[in-house]
Amino acid sequence: MIHKSVSPLRILLVEDNPAHAELVIRSFKSHTINSEIHHVINGEVALDYLFQRGEYADPEKNLQPHVILLDIRMPKVNGLDVLRELKASEELRHIPVIILTTSDAEQDVNKAYQNYVNSYLVKPVEFDKFMQLMEELGFYWLNWNHYQKV
Amino acid sequence: MIHKSVSPLRILLVEDNPAHAELVIRSFKSHTINSEIHHVINGEVALDYLFQRGEYADPEKNLQPHVILLDIRMPKVNGLDVLRELKASEELRHIPVIILTTSDAEQDVNKAYQNYVNSYLVKPVEFDKFMQLMEELGFYWLNWNHYQKV
Repeated sequence: MIHKSVSPLRILLVEDNPAHAELVIRSFKSHTINSEIHHVINGEVALDYLFQRGEYADPEKNLQPHVILLDIRMPKVNGLDVLRELKASEELRHIPVIILTTSDAEQDVNKAYQNYVNSYLVKPVEFDKFMQLMEELGFYWLNWNHYQKV
Repeated sequence: MIHKSVSPLRILLVEDNPAHAELVIRSFKSHTINSEIHHVINGEVALDYLFQRGEYADPEKNLQPHVILLDIRMPKVNGLDVLRELKASEELRHIPVIILTTSDAEQDVNKAYQNYVNSYLVKPVEFDKFMQLMEELGFYWLNWNHYQKV
């Protein structure tokens, strides 16, 4: 019944809060969504990973993700700066960037959309809702979205 | 349990094939997804509607959609041209554009992503899968995605 667009779904999770990151990773496991999550702790590392710089220079070892789950509020390089750089790059623009944040501040939402975010998700405070969001987001981007071949 | 990001979800459906359009509209009704679908039959009318030109000049009567479901292959102005114009517009760029097409041609996928498509969906041939896609797409964009206020 399920159309497998990609499998496994490679996710780059950019999140500076270890507890939040752990929750995302656990939720994907518990929903048995066929995914591989690579977690980086801030926007600077995310850009190194995606542009394959420094310790991430070997493209064989560091496959590009299918989607990026991106927090906004992070030290050094924040999520909106990461988004801006990715969408300015012809090589990386095709990767769907999903903002996953606690902020529904109008300014953050507007800046994300003006910089071509693919989807903007606000983390529900309630645990059950959060798990439901992770499941439905996982299924949508795993089963249905069609990706640019690289 | 469900977080209502927007309700109803206003959808602009841009589709030149009447049978395909009817199927989309019926699927949303059958899934009781709280949505209002405005259907236009080609890219030219879509741009008039979105830029509020001609018969669509009254913004009170013609509310902007939350999301756009956009076919690619259409006479006159095709879907990729519509996408390009929308994402070049600071006023309309924030509206998520979801390509919904029968084409998984690499050239179409690449052009869509290079022009900042939000999501690219290929219509499954099987009826059951098509209905499932419509349901999951409806729930994701209705319940979870957070929109720019206008």
